[in-house]
Amino acid sequence: MFARTQRVRPIAVRVARQALGNEVSRLKAPSTIPYTDDEDAAKPAYYTDHSKPMHDRMEAYVLDLQDRLVTALESLDPSLQKFVRDRWERSDGHGYGISCVLQDGAALEKAGVNVSVISGTLTPGQLKSMRDRRAQTAKLLDDSEQFDFRVAGISVVVHPRNPYAPTAHMNYRRFEVFRQNAPEGEPPVMAWFGGGADLTPAYLFSEDAEHFHQTLKDACDAHDSSYYPRFKTWCDKYFTNIHRGETRGIGGIFFDDLDDKEPEQLFRFAYDAGNAFIRAYVPLVARRMAMPYTQRERDWQLIRRGHYAEFNLVYDRGTKFGLMTPGARIESILMSLPLTARWEYMNEPDPDSPEDRLLRAVRTTTNWTR
Amino acid sequence: MFARTQRVRPIAVRVARQALGNEVSRLKAPSTIPYTDDEDAAKPAYYTDHSKPMHDRMEAYVLDLQDRLVTALESLDPSLQKFVRDRWERSDGHGYGISCVLQDGAALEKAGVNVSVISGTLTPGQLKSMRDRRAQTAKLLDDSEQFDFRVAGISVVVHPRNPYAPTAHMNYRRFEVFRQNAPEGEPPVMAWFGGGADLTPAYLFSEDAEHFHQTLKDACDAHDSSYYPRFKTWCDKYFTNIHRGETRGIGGIFFDDLDDKEPEQLFRFAYDAGNAFIRAYVPLVARRMAMPYTQRERDWQLIRRGHYAEFNLVYDRGTKFGLMTPGARIESILMSLPLTARWEYMNEPDPDSPEDRLLRAVRTTTNWTR
Repeated sequence: MFARTQRVRPIAVRVARQALGNEVSRLKAPSTIPYTDDEDAAKPAYYTDHSKPMHDRMEAYVLDLQDRLVTALESLDPSLQKFVRDRWERSDGHGYGISCVLQDGAALEKAGVNVSVISGTLTPGQLKSMRDRRAQTAKLLDDSEQFDFRVAGISVVVHPRNPYAPTAHMNYRRFEVFRQNAPEGEPPVMAWFGGGADLTPAYLFSEDAEHFHQTLKDACDAHDSSYYPRFKTWCDKYFTNIHRGETRGIGGIFFDDLDDKEPEQLFRFAYDAGNAFIRAYVPLVARRMAMPYTQRERDWQLIRRGHYAEFNLVYDRGTKFGLMTPGARIESILMSLPLTARWEYMNEPDPDSPEDRLLRAVRTTTNWTR
Repeated sequence: MFARTQRVRPIAVRVARQALGNEVSRLKAPSTIPYTDDEDAAKPAYYTDHSKPMHDRMEAYVLDLQDRLVTALESLDPSLQKFVRDRWERSDGHGYGISCVLQDGAALEKAGVNVSVISGTLTPGQLKSMRDRRAQTAKLLDDSEQFDFRVAGISVVVHPRNPYAPTAHMNYRRFEVFRQNAPEGEPPVMAWFGGGADLTPAYLFSEDAEHFHQTLKDACDAHDSSYYPRFKTWCDKYFTNIHRGETRGIGGIFFDDLDDKEPEQLFRFAYDAGNAFIRAYVPLVARRMAMPYTQRERDWQLIRRGHYAEFNLVYDRGTKFGLMTPGARIESILMSLPLTARWEYMNEPDPDSPEDRLLRAVRTTTNWTR
């Protein structure tokens, strides 16, 4: 695009590189990770109890998944630093959340596992955004009426410290829309599931990408063989920094407005997909967290985190929805941002360097599964 | 908003603080700063030559201002690190730019002084954004027609290294809109000036805020006594992180769509306001760049830079315009982002701390001038 670039002065000398390898030598990956979702284990009550409203079962599920994921992530960190758990409630009575955040840990630089169960009135901006993305929504949510919503969801972002350990994001939610001031017990006008999980490495390890994608694919395939290919493509398309012509990471699965099966079936899918995330991701951190690295890898990781912040602030629908929600808890919405990020002018990795290999991976799409 | 917050576990222990004071001990502020715009000096040719089109005179001005500002900023940095100058041209022939960037300097962590002179066809999104902000534009730029534009502008962001030295932003541009494929020489359908300058300290020094605002006010007052009060209010309103209820910094001046006087008069105002920025800002860096600081101040600075990045990516009109422009040079558009930024969960300064004093300043508006 910029064919005739003329550099008048030489590039400024970069600061000297410092080996940081000794920083990680005291880290030791855990030998086991507590998954606690064995297929043989008895299903939890919310899974089997069909008498409860789906919203309540989803709420119970995301709280349970939050606990299990926090336990698995805490098992990684030999500094024994624990997640800080904040329970917050909206002062208008419209919901609560539990934010579990670990910051400045030895293995995890910043990790947030956030549950929120909130309700409210959809703002005109939120309604427009929903109608714009789907004709069916535009039909059901008439322009002349007002609508309330309630949602139960879990949202997770993990930024490990080691540049070789990938960042991951996971999010599952069930969204219900009601006629405003509908009588208690009136069913929602619409309800859907949304969510997904995706991986954002600073350095590409094919075996990590394969493990992550295959684990999610297996969870999808158990429910519908069309899910993984559809949701993988959707993920690549959604998590794109359009202005850079790059995907945020190497993808995973993403879906929204999912309502084309019985709620019970969709709930079971969300349950399995959410559980699969722990097995898809946590072992990757365990595998990479003690690898030696230098300032070069650290700087590159922070540059990639800058791009991560760009996606979340410029494009991410969940972030935008949150920022547009009056009275929203900004700390929980922006929990997804990395602890540190870096924007270097004109950073260009050497051809065929490990950094360049990552760039090539986010400038194309790859099939990582069998 | 979150009245019933319940903290279940204590906040994670912060990493030990390290004094960084020795890092700055070798810095010495310059005794003089080359301003080169003495009132007695002869005006440059582009200022006096009325025979040239205004677009060309603006182009000559922003190139001249770029040179003078780069010289003044380089005089600050005792490491003698120089700006890297990149001249780039769009491969479609629609313009060029000169990006001057200094990175990882001793006094300046990242500074960009960017000129761009570009043309093109306004995209539907860009046209909508222009019409939305002004009824007159909506009337003149008819929905059924297509329009071309050309713009000459300078855009500056300086992020000093010392947490006591404020970040500043400055931007002046002249924008012209033409009927598509208008014959050579046909005057623009519309043309306007836009720009401003604002200050973003991490720590508040009233005397710095007063000097910055007063210098800009004096430049405004020489042209129209209504300018400073209008443009100061506009600046506070525009540079707001709405989701945080905070202004980005402590303001300055901001205006757009300025076309209510003869172009010659407006050009002279832009000339004086742009020149005033050097005198308003560069001495503040000289005054603060060698002050001792510790990791505490550095961390706070990086947190404030995180908020800076939020504003630029979520709200800034110039950034959005750039990201929406097909074939835009992303590196120049995102040059404004800090070299490093930090997002800590639930960072809350102690009441009456210097950090808290800054927060109070960005949560209200203050009259900084005589």
